[in-house]
Amino acid sequence: MVVLGVDPGITHLGLGVVAVEGKGTLRARLLHGEVVRTSHREAAQERVGRIHARVKEALLRFQPQALAVEEQYFYRQNELAYKVGWALGAVLVAAFEAGVPVYAYGPMQVKRALAGHGHATKEEVALMVRGMLGLKEPPGPSHLADALAIALTHAFHARLQAAKPL
Amino acid sequence: MVVLGVDPGITHLGLGVVAVEGKGTLRARLLHGEVVRTSHREAAQERVGRIHARVKEALLRFQPQALAVEEQYFYRQNELAYKVGWALGAVLVAAFEAGVPVYAYGPMQVKRALAGHGHATKEEVALMVRGMLGLKEPPGPSHLADALAIALTHAFHARLQAAKPL
Ligand SMILES: [Mg+2]
Repeated sequence: MVVLGVDPGITHLGLGVVAVEGKGTLRARLLHGEVVRTSHREAAQERVGRIHARVKEALLRFQPQALAVEEQYFYRQNELAYKVGWALGAVLVAAFEAGVPVYAYGPMQVKRALAGHGHATKEEVALMVRGMLGLKEPPGPSHLADALAIALTHAFHARLQAAKPL
Repeated sequence: MVVLGVDPGITHLGLGVVAVEGKGTLRARLLHGEVVRTSHREAAQERVGRIHARVKEALLRFQPQALAVEEQYFYRQNELAYKVGWALGAVLVAAFEAGVPVYAYGPMQVKRALAGHGHATKEEVALMVRGMLGLKEPPGPSHLADALAIALTHAFHARLQAAKPL
């Protein structure tokens, strides 16, 4: 199964594509990773338009069976939530156009799926991602690491038929 | 000048297209009005995908010179701000694809532009929109009225070379 993980953000959006293999122990391969960067000096439609184009390119190139994003509940700043929403809107348009279903998992679900317990640190999660993908280095930058963690979290849930549609 | 006004929302998104005519007193014609409705029972990408498709259709059909949205500052609920953001993300993608610039005005700017003072009621604004568009009835439903008010607000600002890019 190929999963596109997205860490949504308006200035930095992490995009990671993994191929999950076999049964038994979950093993996966990193197919692609990038961070889409936009600046507040660009017009809003340029920023969101580029995010849309890059997500769509990844969907068409890697033909994932699912797109997974981290659920957002923790914002204090409404304006930030609003602008992250713009980015996710662009992601959703691309998924709709490509006919790919979208799933969402909260931070606790990521920690539980990857490290086995909900109070794991970022570092523990990154270590598990590194191990599962057989990488020599911990995945980076952090937004890409988040995107890969989300993709793998979906893979775990999909195997248990416990996928969570957004 | 043709302006597409959008009242962004995830369950109800108002879309109004006006053609602004001549010099002197601002006069305008209503070319098109609709409210795009989506339900929480639909998948997120269906909702946002439909919003994108309808906005894009209006952009291609009416070839506006500008798309104008109401600026959002006033949300108490982050989740709402986040989901309104999804809708605006879809709008921005459509604007980007169509090459149409996007502008945003706050509620006070709408009231000042249309009613002449910042403490005007919703009804006063609706009355002005009705008058400017030469409608027999006040514009409705309310989301469409808001979209038309935004479109006309942009028209006023554009005449004064005071347009506000998002
Ligand atoms: Mg991140």
